Amino acid sequence: MCMDLDFKKMDGLVTAVIQDHASKRVLMVGFMNEEAFRKTVETGFATFFSRSRNKLWLKGETSGHRLAVKEISTDCDRDALLIQVEALGPGVCHEGYQSCFFRRMDDGEWRVSEERAYDPGAVYGGKP
Amino acid sequence: MCMDLDFKKMDGLVTAVIQDHASKRVLMVGFMNEEAFRKTVETGFATFFSRSRNKLWLKGETSGHRLAVKEISTDCDRDALLIQVEALGPGVCHEGYQSCFFRRMDDGEWRVSEERAYDPGAVYGGKP
Repeated sequence: MCMDLDFKKMDGLVTAVIQDHASKRVLMVGFMNEEAFRKTVETGFATFFSRSRNKLWLKGETSGHRLAVKEISTDCDRDALLIQVEALGPGVCHEGYQSCFFRRMDDGEWRVSEERAYDPGAVYGGKP
Repeated sequence: MCMDLDFKKMDGLVTAVIQDHASKRVLMVGFMNEEAFRKTVETGFATFFSRSRNKLWLKGETSGHRLAVKEISTDCDRDALLIQVEALGPGVCHEGYQSCFFRRMDDGEWRVSEERAYDPGAVYGGKP
């Protein structure tokens, strides 16, 4: 497979923007190392590299809210990915929202701009 | 203004996803340090921090293809921005495409998936 990406600019990672393939809403931003990218392509489910936990992270491994890959694009510099997905489950954000981008700037302050889509306590059981 | 962002995770930068406010197409991904973010908010035009040139970069300063900010959101971790824009000009990509994400994965290879929207040589005059 010829799928060269530039992992050098960011210590072995590329940025991955996750967009809902139907609504076009941007759901989250994560990072992938080469292995996470390969697993994403091979399994068809978005897999990231968690910088905080320093390991691969299959999105939805705890919540079941997986991201089924529909289409993958890369940018001019090949250091970013745009991944169109079908989000399985009510929301991708561990705080209970449909999208991680649930805070909008309003008059110089961040304000929560939508309702929660699910109860994160019930899904994660205190393990966000 | 209370607009705290977490600039610590990525050496003083946050990721900024640029999305067309009307078509919802993701146009590019850039990075902002605190000054670039402040300038973006104050001027209403997206300003990035260029990692390759190590300085602030008003998108469109050469091409005229500025990004007029319509709405700014941040994510749960406050280390990424989603910026809805009106893109002034035919394309945001310095290679001549409407979006920097003009290559799609197709059967294990990256393939250009659209036509150029403008001639980058005419716009940048050899200064990409």
